[in-house]
Amino acid sequence: MSPQELTEQIFKKQSFLCVGLDVDIDRIPTYLLSEDDPIFEFNRAIIDATHKFCVAYKPNIAFYEANGVEGWQALEKTINYLHHEYPEIYTIADAKRGDIGNTSRMYAKTFLQDLGFDSVTVAPYMGKDSVEPFLEFDNRQAILLALTSNEGAFDFQTQQIDGEELYKKVLKTSKTWKNSENLMYVVGATKAEFLKEIREIIPENFLLVPGVGAQGGKLEDVCKYGMTKNVGLLVNSSRKIIYASESSNFAEIAGAKAEVLQQQMAEELRKL
Amino acid sequence: MSPQELTEQIFKKQSFLCVGLDVDIDRIPTYLLSEDDPIFEFNRAIIDATHKFCVAYKPNIAFYEANGVEGWQALEKTINYLHHEYPEIYTIADAKRGDIGNTSRMYAKTFLQDLGFDSVTVAPYMGKDSVEPFLEFDNRQAILLALTSNEGAFDFQTQQIDGEELYKKVLKTSKTWKNSENLMYVVGATKAEFLKEIREIIPENFLLVPGVGAQGGKLEDVCKYGMTKNVGLLVNSSRKIIYASESSNFAEIAGAKAEVLQQQMAEELRKL
Repeated sequence: MSPQELTEQIFKKQSFLCVGLDVDIDRIPTYLLSEDDPIFEFNRAIIDATHKFCVAYKPNIAFYEANGVEGWQALEKTINYLHHEYPEIYTIADAKRGDIGNTSRMYAKTFLQDLGFDSVTVAPYMGKDSVEPFLEFDNRQAILLALTSNEGAFDFQTQQIDGEELYKKVLKTSKTWKNSENLMYVVGATKAEFLKEIREIIPENFLLVPGVGAQGGKLEDVCKYGMTKNVGLLVNSSRKIIYASESSNFAEIAGAKAEVLQQQMAEELRKL
Repeated sequence: MSPQELTEQIFKKQSFLCVGLDVDIDRIPTYLLSEDDPIFEFNRAIIDATHKFCVAYKPNIAFYEANGVEGWQALEKTINYLHHEYPEIYTIADAKRGDIGNTSRMYAKTFLQDLGFDSVTVAPYMGKDSVEPFLEFDNRQAILLALTSNEGAFDFQTQQIDGEELYKKVLKTSKTWKNSENLMYVVGATKAEFLKEIREIIPENFLLVPGVGAQGGKLEDVCKYGMTKNVGLLVNSSRKIIYASESSNFAEIAGAKAEVLQQQMAEELRKL
């Protein structure tokens, strides 16, 4: 999917919500455990109940790998279900990959071609040749870690290089890479005030924003500093939606939680 | 396995060779493709032929993920084969993972507990809470990216922070983390002269050194600057060994290539 099509979906649904599918087998309703594929059944119920209120889903690959072969099967079934039932949805493989060129090429092929995700999250530490293989696909994006929402972001990302923070160096340097129009960036919402300076460096690119709500960022601030005329934002919520309830109507309650966020987002979109 | 046990194996085998299992289904001898699990059969043949000359194997996870469910099955069979047939071998999941705490915990459990690798490679960009979950296991290690062997290493890793390179900041900062005795580091051999300064920061930790041979580093220089009294080095070779031949005796030829490296390493160990 192109960024333009994603923007169209956002205006159509009045939502820039991404639902994180961080599905922990130990946290899903116990009655699902008797199903052949509990993780997929959980995802299907969540997706059916929330898709009207969001534009994107983001399976966190760690949670699937943790279940080995069965986890990969659940991941494949989930992405295939999304492609088949809801082709208008934008999909993100939250994998945080990045390696030397020939290895990154393998990861890119796996997530962007074979599994057919629209995008994959990528770590920048190994530089240009570790990221560019993810940028070679038409209508596919790499979402590069810039400023993350965790405490450890202050260990290296905010350290000064030549008078500016490492994450700004990552933003500026990555703009020079081949097919950089296929870049989006992870920017944590716990530091919404940083978004103003970030937008001076990358005025157009989509930002994937984790950490609204549970991790303390405010949606209003994120929009104030980060929103562009084409929106340019995907705001993620994972656990607050998918684990809102452990009862048999968990999906319905997840849908209601997603709708609350969608309504808040519609309010922000009206300010554009 | 503890670093002490690894050192014992190195002295016993007179080798600090790690063989990288970057197994590309498009590059293995075609006659193996009729097997039920060609990747595992390739690995088994390579392992049987090379295990006498090396102390470690390093499957590159990208190459297994690229084959989806079948790839994960091949990975599981390979690590189980190593555990069962050659328990004295040190195993590295080359995965370059790293994410917020609860996600890193999932990756750590997958590779260090469920699959039972001795170690996993980890990217430092997200800082302390993204790495510490990999350090919580007895006799298991996280191998943190410090200075990699690719061209992109110069984009960020060698940039100056407060008068020293980012990779040195990574080394120094990571030493302060909980269970930091379980850290090893990736240091590329293309910059062997950097090893002297690296050893001033981390005099004891094991270094995983890619890029000897194919990527231009010299074994002698790596040992001159990087070897400790407990050796403290694992030098990796992947493609030069496993793809040395495409003929039916590929494993035998791989074994011969590994032996050449082992002999060079024995020569270096005699200098200790």
